[in-house]
Amino acid sequence: MFSVRNGWLFVEDVSIKELVESYGTPLYVTSRSTLERNIKAYKDAFKDAKLLYAVKANNNLSILRIISANGFGADVFSGGELYIALLADFPKEYILFNGNSKSDEEIRMGVRSGVAFSVDSIDELYTLSETAILEDSEVRIAFRVNPEIDAKTHPKIATALRTSKFGIPWEGIVDIYRTAYELPGVEPCGIHCHIGSQITDISPFVEALEKMFQIAKQVEEIGVELEFIDIGGGLGIDYEGKGAPTPAQLAEKLLPVFENGLSELKSDPELWLEPGRSIVGDTTVLLTKVNAVKKSYKNFVAVDAGFNLLLRPAMYNAYHRIAVANKMDREGEEVYTIVGPICESGDILGEDRKLPKVEKGDIIAIFDAGAYGFAMSSQYNGRTRCAEVLVEGSHHYLTREAESYGDLIVKQRIPEHLL
Amino acid sequence: MFSVRNGWLFVEDVSIKELVESYGTPLYVTSRSTLERNIKAYKDAFKDAKLLYAVKANNNLSILRIISANGFGADVFSGGELYIALLADFPKEYILFNGNSKSDEEIRMGVRSGVAFSVDSIDELYTLSETAILEDSEVRIAFRVNPEIDAKTHPKIATALRTSKFGIPWEGIVDIYRTAYELPGVEPCGIHCHIGSQITDISPFVEALEKMFQIAKQVEEIGVELEFIDIGGGLGIDYEGKGAPTPAQLAEKLLPVFENGLSELKSDPELWLEPGRSIVGDTTVLLTKVNAVKKSYKNFVAVDAGFNLLLRPAMYNAYHRIAVANKMDREGEEVYTIVGPICESGDILGEDRKLPKVEKGDIIAIFDAGAYGFAMSSQYNGRTRCAEVLVEGSHHYLTREAESYGDLIVKQRIPEHLL
Repeated sequence: MFSVRNGWLFVEDVSIKELVESYGTPLYVTSRSTLERNIKAYKDAFKDAKLLYAVKANNNLSILRIISANGFGADVFSGGELYIALLADFPKEYILFNGNSKSDEEIRMGVRSGVAFSVDSIDELYTLSETAILEDSEVRIAFRVNPEIDAKTHPKIATALRTSKFGIPWEGIVDIYRTAYELPGVEPCGIHCHIGSQITDISPFVEALEKMFQIAKQVEEIGVELEFIDIGGGLGIDYEGKGAPTPAQLAEKLLPVFENGLSELKSDPELWLEPGRSIVGDTTVLLTKVNAVKKSYKNFVAVDAGFNLLLRPAMYNAYHRIAVANKMDREGEEVYTIVGPICESGDILGEDRKLPKVEKGDIIAIFDAGAYGFAMSSQYNGRTRCAEVLVEGSHHYLTREAESYGDLIVKQRIPEHLL
Repeated sequence: MFSVRNGWLFVEDVSIKELVESYGTPLYVTSRSTLERNIKAYKDAFKDAKLLYAVKANNNLSILRIISANGFGADVFSGGELYIALLADFPKEYILFNGNSKSDEEIRMGVRSGVAFSVDSIDELYTLSETAILEDSEVRIAFRVNPEIDAKTHPKIATALRTSKFGIPWEGIVDIYRTAYELPGVEPCGIHCHIGSQITDISPFVEALEKMFQIAKQVEEIGVELEFIDIGGGLGIDYEGKGAPTPAQLAEKLLPVFENGLSELKSDPELWLEPGRSIVGDTTVLLTKVNAVKKSYKNFVAVDAGFNLLLRPAMYNAYHRIAVANKMDREGEEVYTIVGPICESGDILGEDRKLPKVEKGDIIAIFDAGAYGFAMSSQYNGRTRCAEVLVEGSHHYLTREAESYGDLIVKQRIPEHLL
């Protein structure tokens, strides 16, 4: 949890001052109690459902350990995420290997590790079957269905529009289940969809679940016994203070549809959900130091974190709340545009924000940076990636070391004749 | 140079087949002869100017070594880029430390290394002066001027609009030179501007240079002796086959303005330019393997590289030419949308491209990936960054190793109580 004491932002019982002095800036800081609160909200709301955490939102192993210890499964989207999820001790039977473009190597890795697959194409189905036979294994699969639903979110993260690259068109899906049912090595036992990310209107989830049950009934007629119906993730969080639905509100709408759907099925599938952002998004603040304040045609605050560390504002025009962490008790006085150190005009973290008078050396806090924050970071402009810290009460733990300049070139080799 | 032999794409005398068999995919491959051709074009066009390569475009040390061996200086935008430029043996007197948000540590590093600074704010000027005094040094500086010029490029990379975060408004610039002239530790000796990136119309460069000379005359009156006028970089390349100006064409327009401007000055500054994209952009191809072909509402080709490795299409809607590297002699038959493995609908490398019939296992070549390609790469979605290779005639050299899954977690630490 975050609070203000004596003008300073606190993460649980630790002052930002102490964190910045201990670890420097930029710095990602996560509150364990906020994480536990979000986990509990989902577990309370969906008692009988299986929750698969979407590793792509934040793959910090310490965070993953806390999530897996709470009984979650994992939604992974690559061999690398599978590797990380296994290290974080998620149970294999509740790891779903998602992805629209899996390499043969990734498919083999997934088959060997015994996880379930969400299959995105016929090409993948055949590769999976062949691989499973070679590995003398049988793989539990779902198909990723494109339900053609407009989730009313940013077009780059709306994943179930008719023209989206994800999934198999829902009109043809039953034939594909039939093919899979007859194919050796694969055992179709689930249905999967995912309609997008940062969704703040619940009705598209309901619509998607209804479509999944239409498919489920037809798929059962083939002989498929359904173990799960996975409605994906994508519940939005409240970046702008305009409110966002809670897991309880999502459950209130979804669970009756699920119960009703179940009553028409022969098998007894579990409901699976894949929350990511709504588990980790508001747990984490990005701290960044002011290098310069400049009065140009606008009032600029230049900080030491840019879209190298938090891509969302530059990439999606995303809004993050911003505060001066060492002046939390002061009123807003001037309007500033907070910019990073990257050599692009789009490297803006927040535009026209009313803040207390900002000076060089101040610490700027960027809130709700726990999802798609560090996960999308790069070394662009020769910038090292920063550290991550986990706060528990009055304790804080370094969970990811900052990079040094050597890490920018650690994989490089110069041929002898160019030395 | 790139060519086609027996239906295969060749980089110089090396087949893509050989490269993919040797190094796997995804893979960035650079042609040294194309790089040398671009370098020569600039050197021929700007015989008396100083060329500072913009390290941000591509910081592969082997590429940098070739550029520095050709007498270039370097434009660096961070401590990390300075570190890399020094390793690549660029001469310190021709390294310009740019940047709108330099930390105290970066300023100290720059002062100690003896490079010149482009100063972006008054805050930076004072920090620089104090640091130089402490280090018993005198730092050569220019100010980054915002000339208020619309470079007619993508708004995210147009860097001299009135509202841009970069530079100091040009109306107030002379007063700031006066302040700097009287400040110990700093020696104002240059003027710097940079109007944007991927600019294909030369006239904004001419306009900017004319404005720089207006400032130069006023700055000389203070007593400043000018060593350089740095017009920045930003010359575009021909991504779409619609043509782009050559360095010779840029020189043809710029040099007369420069000569004319010089005749009105007391001092004899050099012309500095900061080319990046136009040096490395077309030298490099990104090779990526087809994991699946899917007929959905569109025809999708799912490959193993996405915006984790080449962000430009997703971030700027940038166009890159795309070909099937193992079917170069076949006519286009079908229209495909080439998508990467990242869990976002915006992860599209090329939309609606007419290509020969594509099958799983084919190798897709994405051209002109040498600038802002690997440099902007990330490990998003748990994806490892790929290898880079330099081709010279019939030889090829690994210049950057691919990452392994371990590299996704190498900086992570799990607190003992979470193990």
